[in-house]
Amino acid sequence: MQRVTPPLSGERFTVVYRFSGNREEAQAKAWDACIEQTVEFPFDLLPEGDIPEKIIGQIESMNPANEDQSSFIARISFAVENAGHDLVQLLNVIFGNTSIKPGVRVEEFDLPDSMINRFRGPRFGREGLRTLLSAPERPLLCTALKPMGLSVQDLADQAYQFALGGIDIIKDDHGLADQVFSPFEERVQRCADAVARANQQTGYHSFYMPSLGLRADQLLEKAHFAKQNGAGGLLVPPGLVGFDSMRMLADDDGLNLPVMLHPAFVGSYVTAPANGFSHYALFGQVARLAGADATIYPNWGGRFSFSKQECISIVAGSQDLMGHLKTIFPTPGGGMTFDRLPEMLEVYGKNVIFLMGGGLHRIANTLVESSRTIREMVENIR
Amino acid sequence: MQRVTPPLSGERFTVVYRFSGNREEAQAKAWDACIEQTVEFPFDLLPEGDIPEKIIGQIESMNPANEDQSSFIARISFAVENAGHDLVQLLNVIFGNTSIKPGVRVEEFDLPDSMINRFRGPRFGREGLRTLLSAPERPLLCTALKPMGLSVQDLADQAYQFALGGIDIIKDDHGLADQVFSPFEERVQRCADAVARANQQTGYHSFYMPSLGLRADQLLEKAHFAKQNGAGGLLVPPGLVGFDSMRMLADDDGLNLPVMLHPAFVGSYVTAPANGFSHYALFGQVARLAGADATIYPNWGGRFSFSKQECISIVAGSQDLMGHLKTIFPTPGGGMTFDRLPEMLEVYGKNVIFLMGGGLHRIANTLVESSRTIREMVENIR
Repeated sequence: MQRVTPPLSGERFTVVYRFSGNREEAQAKAWDACIEQTVEFPFDLLPEGDIPEKIIGQIESMNPANEDQSSFIARISFAVENAGHDLVQLLNVIFGNTSIKPGVRVEEFDLPDSMINRFRGPRFGREGLRTLLSAPERPLLCTALKPMGLSVQDLADQAYQFALGGIDIIKDDHGLADQVFSPFEERVQRCADAVARANQQTGYHSFYMPSLGLRADQLLEKAHFAKQNGAGGLLVPPGLVGFDSMRMLADDDGLNLPVMLHPAFVGSYVTAPANGFSHYALFGQVARLAGADATIYPNWGGRFSFSKQECISIVAGSQDLMGHLKTIFPTPGGGMTFDRLPEMLEVYGKNVIFLMGGGLHRIANTLVESSRTIREMVENIR
Repeated sequence: MQRVTPPLSGERFTVVYRFSGNREEAQAKAWDACIEQTVEFPFDLLPEGDIPEKIIGQIESMNPANEDQSSFIARISFAVENAGHDLVQLLNVIFGNTSIKPGVRVEEFDLPDSMINRFRGPRFGREGLRTLLSAPERPLLCTALKPMGLSVQDLADQAYQFALGGIDIIKDDHGLADQVFSPFEERVQRCADAVARANQQTGYHSFYMPSLGLRADQLLEKAHFAKQNGAGGLLVPPGLVGFDSMRMLADDDGLNLPVMLHPAFVGSYVTAPANGFSHYALFGQVARLAGADATIYPNWGGRFSFSKQECISIVAGSQDLMGHLKTIFPTPGGGMTFDRLPEMLEVYGKNVIFLMGGGLHRIANTLVESSRTIREMVENIR
């Protein structure tokens, strides 16, 4: 009888998977995940004791996901010790090797407080962001500096005009990196300055948020450069830099800045309906564990294909109880236009950040006017 | 007429995408990618000049991918300047926002030397690994320490036996992280010592390769700890830690260690046939840009679903000309058994690393004997 050392606590966390196939196929896939996500070893060769009894996953329940019984929802529990102490290994246990198998989707997961307490989670969350922006109730506004190819001067001019018009968060388009047209350091300095200048005129608290789609060995250094030069937040694409790099930036007390998740390069986790993650789990639960204060995703009816239902599930993921983790802002974007706002308000209510990029260039004759129009609109919502 | 500053070089790189749909739909998707992957801005609002003429993607060709014309292959070129200076932004231009759109797959990409020269790529490659292991011709052997839950002592004993039997690369199972059963530092020291002890007896050059599925803020520090304590290589899961973190580790002159890619958490990029990346691009081209010397993937006919054809395409991606980048080792695993080796040899030839985990526990009565059996087998191939 082989026991693991030190003894296991007995606490377990649960992952809810959807397995494609009839009951028999789904059952086989679920059992496979119990092994694949833990010991990756022939069951009959495991040493007796804790490893087959506690370390491998356990199927807690299994029910049809739909009437035609073409897929099944299984709750599988794992020993908390399997997930180590960090987000990387937690994601590895949730979906590491299983990501390579077709017909498995992570619908949601449920962590005991002992695990969640290891994560700081969103530093600001909804309330913290509202305080920073002196906007206790209304929807917040975000836009992106673009298009790629503009000079730093042009981007800083845009930033100034957006801020003058009252856009709260003026972020780099995620395609702005460290390119010859607008090198990172110069862009950060000029854009942050431009927003600060506008704030002095308006009395608003807008801030500039650079995009951190940057080299792994420069990420922390450049984030600190941004902080020191007036950036008010960080746009982070975890698909490109890693979810735990986002967590690292959010956790950094020297930075102490809000973090916004950008979905570049994570689409493959959600585009195929039978594989990957649910929108709820990825843009809600994982985003919060990784410290995002706001989670960007493409709104329904824009340039992308998320359904209204999927967007609503992201809202749920952004606010459902997860231990002490703060609620965060759903930030729908991706081809939004002014005339969509009433419909979006109806669905999202006021706890939302409206991200309007190109669409903001069409509302009025100047960016300042366009920004003012949308700012007035959200201020007058009751 | 707005020109970008400094002037664009005129050099372009090409991404070959497969777009699902009939010709009209595919054409619309291709045009959409030209915009989405660059300016993300309404075309009619772009300032005249370089941005619409050179910065946005250009469709160079478009042809049916198959006889029924249900998908199309488009070559889209982008200005080299769009991709900045690093892997993060290159991946962003190749597939950032487009990852969120269904029915788009990256088949391959083609970079001019001016871009490839910015990447060191695999530090060792096939030849370098062969030199390290004093194995100029034969297939190399790799196994994994497992199952999760064993103590450091048990894992180190396994490592010793594998090395004594002549397995070249003894890696952590990717599920071993920094858990209570086998804390990272202690495991690395003991396993590296065990392999060194065996090498003294055998005269072989086997090495231990810890898994670096670790926190972003500890990755580099723990990699150096591993190096200082006798690790001979690094197992890196780029899906969990980011492709550029792998590149950072491979580029580190203080580490100077071979890097092996583990596919945990990248599966979603390849499991849906109409989305994500081709196996060729992800496990071949991207792996090499990110500095992998060996690329692990599940062999056909094991626990996973890759086809023989897809495995063969990974071999092509591991060795096709990519400027100065070294060729790397395809490392098929995922449920391999001794009796599969002849069939695998026929397909892979000698330029392969056979990764056998659980299967190695079944060949003979002891791990030493099992390892010897497979070592003799590969040494006697002509």
